[in-house]
Amino acid sequence: MQMIPVECVVRNIAAGGLVKRLGVEEGIALTPPTFELFLKNDEKGDPMINESLAETFGWATPEQLAKMKVLTFKVNHILKALFAEGDMLLVDYKLEFGVFKGEVVLGDEFSPDGCRLWDANTREKLDKDRFRQGLGGVIEAYEEVGRRLGITFPA
Amino acid sequence: MQMIPVECVVRNIAAGGLVKRLGVEEGIALTPPTFELFLKNDEKGDPMINESLAETFGWATPEQLAKMKVLTFKVNHILKALFAEGDMLLVDYKLEFGVFKGEVVLGDEFSPDGCRLWDANTREKLDKDRFRQGLGGVIEAYEEVGRRLGITFPA
Repeated sequence: MQMIPVECVVRNIAAGGLVKRLGVEEGIALTPPTFELFLKNDEKGDPMINESLAETFGWATPEQLAKMKVLTFKVNHILKALFAEGDMLLVDYKLEFGVFKGEVVLGDEFSPDGCRLWDANTREKLDKDRFRQGLGGVIEAYEEVGRRLGITFPA
Repeated sequence: MQMIPVECVVRNIAAGGLVKRLGVEEGIALTPPTFELFLKNDEKGDPMINESLAETFGWATPEQLAKMKVLTFKVNHILKALFAEGDMLLVDYKLEFGVFKGEVVLGDEFSPDGCRLWDANTREKLDKDRFRQGLGGVIEAYEEVGRRLGITFPA
């Protein structure tokens, strides 16, 4: 698979980079959910881009970007409901795509490393922010996410 | 007029913030020209946004953004030709819009403060970058732009 160097981010609730960049309040509901593109470029810190830049620089075609957007929102629809069953809020997440046999397909894992999950009642963070913000209990949080989704762990 | 807090930027040649943010080479032609949106927010340094964020946060409606994009590219078409007649390259520019009697209209000046202009042959900078980059000769450059456009100055 040929990876597309563009990350798709959907946000249902304001947090993380969005709050830092725009100065909006953490925790507010985003209606409709937002969609952003970021260039995968470690040296430049994965800068925000948009469809126009992706097309001009050849990072992705308009058709690929349209497909990526549809797929990213489809994932939101499915996973928001899945996490809600486990009393969790899907705050935001990123997805990466690639081209396989001419088709745009998901090209990356989905895990608490690439999304934000909060307890629906206490808003306790159950994702990588525990590590990023030095909150501790990273492994316990990830295991808790798994338990709430009905995943059993090997002893 | 009610100003819309979103700047529209069109780039024909890579320079300035784009080069810094994305690590692309200054001076390369952008084909097709790129289109970006920035939030007018001094405290946050006018961060890049996109249509989705503008809609969700209520900064501009999708209809307003579509109109702003069309108008911004129309300006590019006209001004690129105008500056070319004076042997200048219109590298990039920003425009701001407002709503007046229900219509989206241009709500800001167009000057070398809000655009980049290079001499078409030497690529000498004839805009605010002279000031930003400490190159000196700002007033002379602005007067030169005026002269090339056939504007006569009062003695």
